[in-house]
Amino acid sequence: MKPITAVVFGVGVMGQDMTRLLLERGVSIVGAVARSPEKVGRDLGRVAGVGRDLGVLISSDADKLLAGLGADVAVIAVDSYLDSHAEHIATCVRHGLNVVTIAEEAFHPWGTAPETAARLDALARQHGVTIYGGGHQDIFWAGIGGLLMGASHRVDEVRWRTDFNPEGLSRELLLEMGIGCDPSELPVDDGQARPPSFGIAAVDAVAAHLGLPRGTVSVHSEPVIGTEPIYSAALRREVPPGQIVGVRDTVRRDEGPGEPLLEFTMIGSISALEPGDSWQVIGKPGFKLSSRYTPGHDQVTGQAVNRIPDVLAAAPGWAAFDSLPPLRYRRTFSRP
Amino acid sequence: MKPITAVVFGVGVMGQDMTRLLLERGVSIVGAVARSPEKVGRDLGRVAGVGRDLGVLISSDADKLLAGLGADVAVIAVDSYLDSHAEHIATCVRHGLNVVTIAEEAFHPWGTAPETAARLDALARQHGVTIYGGGHQDIFWAGIGGLLMGASHRVDEVRWRTDFNPEGLSRELLLEMGIGCDPSELPVDDGQARPPSFGIAAVDAVAAHLGLPRGTVSVHSEPVIGTEPIYSAALRREVPPGQIVGVRDTVRRDEGPGEPLLEFTMIGSISALEPGDSWQVIGKPGFKLSSRYTPGHDQVTGQAVNRIPDVLAAAPGWAAFDSLPPLRYRRTFSRP
Repeated sequence: MKPITAVVFGVGVMGQDMTRLLLERGVSIVGAVARSPEKVGRDLGRVAGVGRDLGVLISSDADKLLAGLGADVAVIAVDSYLDSHAEHIATCVRHGLNVVTIAEEAFHPWGTAPETAARLDALARQHGVTIYGGGHQDIFWAGIGGLLMGASHRVDEVRWRTDFNPEGLSRELLLEMGIGCDPSELPVDDGQARPPSFGIAAVDAVAAHLGLPRGTVSVHSEPVIGTEPIYSAALRREVPPGQIVGVRDTVRRDEGPGEPLLEFTMIGSISALEPGDSWQVIGKPGFKLSSRYTPGHDQVTGQAVNRIPDVLAAAPGWAAFDSLPPLRYRRTFSRP
Repeated sequence: MKPITAVVFGVGVMGQDMTRLLLERGVSIVGAVARSPEKVGRDLGRVAGVGRDLGVLISSDADKLLAGLGADVAVIAVDSYLDSHAEHIATCVRHGLNVVTIAEEAFHPWGTAPETAARLDALARQHGVTIYGGGHQDIFWAGIGGLLMGASHRVDEVRWRTDFNPEGLSRELLLEMGIGCDPSELPVDDGQARPPSFGIAAVDAVAAHLGLPRGTVSVHSEPVIGTEPIYSAALRREVPPGQIVGVRDTVRRDEGPGEPLLEFTMIGSISALEPGDSWQVIGKPGFKLSSRYTPGHDQVTGQAVNRIPDVLAAAPGWAAFDSLPPLRYRRTFSRP
């Protein structure tokens, strides 16, 4: 069995975690890319806490690293939005690598970044490789609800909700969410999340899974205001009561009678103590489902890495989650 | 689009329910089989509560009915165990029909009825049709836990549990479970459920999904004793305190270090007020999931009927649940 060869693109918390998991799965890591001067030039094994050298020096020059490397797949963990790293994806694709990115927007990019998705899809087909946006949303914001409805006679409404604590994410992301700001500092809410809510990708993916035509998804975004002082490790300061501790996005697709109402509520708050997801299917029969996981981001990196064999086996282009088999646990894997 | 044509085999509560759902899905029902003299000769639409004639007279002679009928699929709802209706399955297969049976044992029959499964598998291959055991276990006792583990770095133990109320099932099934008996009337527990626990099929299916080799599954069965009087509609009498109101089966696969421990606890009790299933995955990360559904059996018939397009598209033989795509809701469906 020939091992899968991978490049780790982005060596932050997520990239480090994926590095360790890739090794556990028997994947051979043949390259790493980062921009931080504290990481570039060091061995990936040391930076990622593997406890030994991997013989992989972190590079800041992806194009140079990937040329002629012949790796199977790049796992990208640099940002949540697609446009910020579309060029990283394109670089990997041009060098013949399949791509799994954990950018939330990339899970189903056709709603919020259609031109970028179309351009990268064409590029991937041209180079015979597959791009996929994996991570938490794969199972918890789409797959598990889709599976639950597999038992339905009739689905009238699907309401799901995620509670997450953004503390484990980057300081940049918290600031984008307005966390630590005074509500008066926020621009007037025009009913649209700024930047585009991750939830749009999830709602669009569930709609596609249900075989629904393209529809309109609205986002209503409102701040969650703290009621007591909360220390934020990511911001490295206490957020006093009355300031913003999180964001509540309500992402809704309501095309009227004839198709199910889809509504996804996302509450990201540094006051969230029990992260998890829950689903309610209103119809015949009715269903309720809730899932909880050990706080952290293991489930994100687990889903991204566990997708690698599916992505390597998929048709070239940008793969929709729905076109891949259900995620599956394998202790180790090799080339499909 | 050519509609799927189906035969309803068994017109009890489940068969009647599937009749209505098949019609909602746009399936054309072309035959029905039952043994009860009160049903044979009547129109299926009247017996199944459709409110109109379907032009389908219920027959007691499957062989005669199916000869030359050319139907796509039979949905069978006659019993929970395979051996009691293996001949019904064989009759359908010989006449070129694909089969979906809701017999719990049929979900993964290779552990408890290997000879019957092998014989029917060979027959199905010979006739170019597919046999599948669908129903509640498809999603709730196997699929949803398997999907959950798709997010795992490492799985150490999988513990899942079902709470069901057998009142909605047949009087025969309640008597098989010992419900309404005095504990002294039960034979001495030899550690094996009698008859084979439905849970064996679920544990075997999850092990197969995880790619584990054939292993040993043990069943420990014990009665649930009532602590207050409970009226049983199925038994048409009150069960006094001290008598058996249900069964608790613990189905366990423990092959030692090197593979995950699997343990499935099944509590079927007429005192269960909130039926549902829950999963706990111990590992990295840890997961907890619980699901609840409107009391009844809609989720059983929903899963069986929603599987039809997958079964029609599957390779000939007895299909393992793992070989089919994840169950999916479709308002209507036609021939794949």
